[in-house]
Amino acid sequence: MRIGFIGLGIMGKPMCKNLIKAGYDVIVSSSKPKTNDEMREAGACVANSYKDLASQVDVVITMVPNSPEVKAVIQEIADDLSEGATVIDMSSIAPLASQEIANMLRKRGIGFLDAPVSGGEPKAIEGTVSVMVGGDSNTFEKCKPILDTMAGSVVRVGDVGAGNSTKLANQIIVALNIAAVSEAFVLAKKMGVDLELVHEAIRGGLAGSTVLDAKGPMMIERDFKPGFKIDLHLKDVNNVVETANELDVPLPLTHSMQEALKTLSEEGFGQEDHSAILRYFENQN
Amino acid sequence: MRIGFIGLGIMGKPMCKNLIKAGYDVIVSSSKPKTNDEMREAGACVANSYKDLASQVDVVITMVPNSPEVKAVIQEIADDLSEGATVIDMSSIAPLASQEIANMLRKRGIGFLDAPVSGGEPKAIEGTVSVMVGGDSNTFEKCKPILDTMAGSVVRVGDVGAGNSTKLANQIIVALNIAAVSEAFVLAKKMGVDLELVHEAIRGGLAGSTVLDAKGPMMIERDFKPGFKIDLHLKDVNNVVETANELDVPLPLTHSMQEALKTLSEEGFGQEDHSAILRYFENQN
Repeated sequence: MRIGFIGLGIMGKPMCKNLIKAGYDVIVSSSKPKTNDEMREAGACVANSYKDLASQVDVVITMVPNSPEVKAVIQEIADDLSEGATVIDMSSIAPLASQEIANMLRKRGIGFLDAPVSGGEPKAIEGTVSVMVGGDSNTFEKCKPILDTMAGSVVRVGDVGAGNSTKLANQIIVALNIAAVSEAFVLAKKMGVDLELVHEAIRGGLAGSTVLDAKGPMMIERDFKPGFKIDLHLKDVNNVVETANELDVPLPLTHSMQEALKTLSEEGFGQEDHSAILRYFENQN
Repeated sequence: MRIGFIGLGIMGKPMCKNLIKAGYDVIVSSSKPKTNDEMREAGACVANSYKDLASQVDVVITMVPNSPEVKAVIQEIADDLSEGATVIDMSSIAPLASQEIANMLRKRGIGFLDAPVSGGEPKAIEGTVSVMVGGDSNTFEKCKPILDTMAGSVVRVGDVGAGNSTKLANQIIVALNIAAVSEAFVLAKKMGVDLELVHEAIRGGLAGSTVLDAKGPMMIERDFKPGFKIDLHLKDVNNVVETANELDVPLPLTHSMQEALKTLSEEGFGQEDHSAILRYFENQN
């Protein structure tokens, strides 16, 4: 089976490399020559364009920033995909956008899964991200072995759109768990307790979390190299708020996080890791 | 070594049983005859009163609701403790109260540790709570083997008060992590995604947490049997806000959680498990 991979960013690149390591025949196409060289080195073929890539593969995986980018890529390649091909969009986008794309592709006989991931760069490198998948069971079963090569867990949560609905829920939790550690650290520091000892003392209790373990040390060392950028988390939280408004669901704390991420982005911290949410809670005075 | 244990509630009882199982000679004294019977059955001796208990032991462990209760118990027994005895207060109280108690006891030649725990009832039963300890190194080293019988981790975080400072930070995280899961579940349910599948799909990613694993299923099944009660978490968050105000630290999300817990308590949910914070976020419309 031949797989095309579009979107070789912080997450996409290591995910694609895990596909190659698992023995899949992978074709990439990046606008950055350096990325193409790196992926060729890793064992991929390099196509001249997305259209060229699409004409050669059974499955296309997309991993790009947001709904408009996914729509643009898929519109560009739709004519070049064979009937019976499948698109797996692993980007995190609005559930409604996933459904629109799936409908458009279905008319051309092309399958679609929305399969966003969580876990951040370290898990992308290890091949242990969590994948939350929306789509019909047949397409899911056909594609699950592909997803397994990149993932620690792959769960079908429902039909198309359900993957991204689940990802929105996921991003609420991640943003608020980072905020939780931020307020705890701001207070602990002011109380004069050593943050490394605090981290060590609480991580095994009910306050323990993947965020505390993955982001806590970055927050203590003030190392905000991304990882997952503030601007991307803002994009996700904007998708959450838009969806919540459509469904008339008030999410007061998520609204606070939208404000926090927006403020940080406007202040020039959008390219930092989302653990820099700490900055917002340090600057409330 | 003989140990007295005062405060046989949801957490204290299983913690005390683990001390007995580890072979310590344990004396208890409860106002509830049924609790005394149960602990006698488990292998403890039963004293007639706290004063009687205090006169027979080298170490007293206290595990009661809040600062006033700890102060009351310790004032009651202070005259009956031998010089050289140690009090380990495992309750979660204000750091300043711990320091006041320690000063009072020091004048009588009695040692003190503040050693609050986190992990909830399941970890209390398993003997895997996390203990965050404040006190001098000598007293800590002397008492660590005792604490180890109840705990998965025992970390000295600083001098007297530091244990409870750390616990305040811990309780901020726990309250906000429950709120995070609440907002995520409220939105996911409204989006029509199955919550059990959401839980399964996200627990291995960056949204993973001890709260998600321990409280998520309770929230899905709406089983709010405590565990750790809303009213006790409100008490802790009140201690957080009081301390934060003294130190002039604004904690906007923690203030929201104080409001949420207060509202739930006033609405009659104070005796439910703190996973019932979900109710607050369901009722924002």
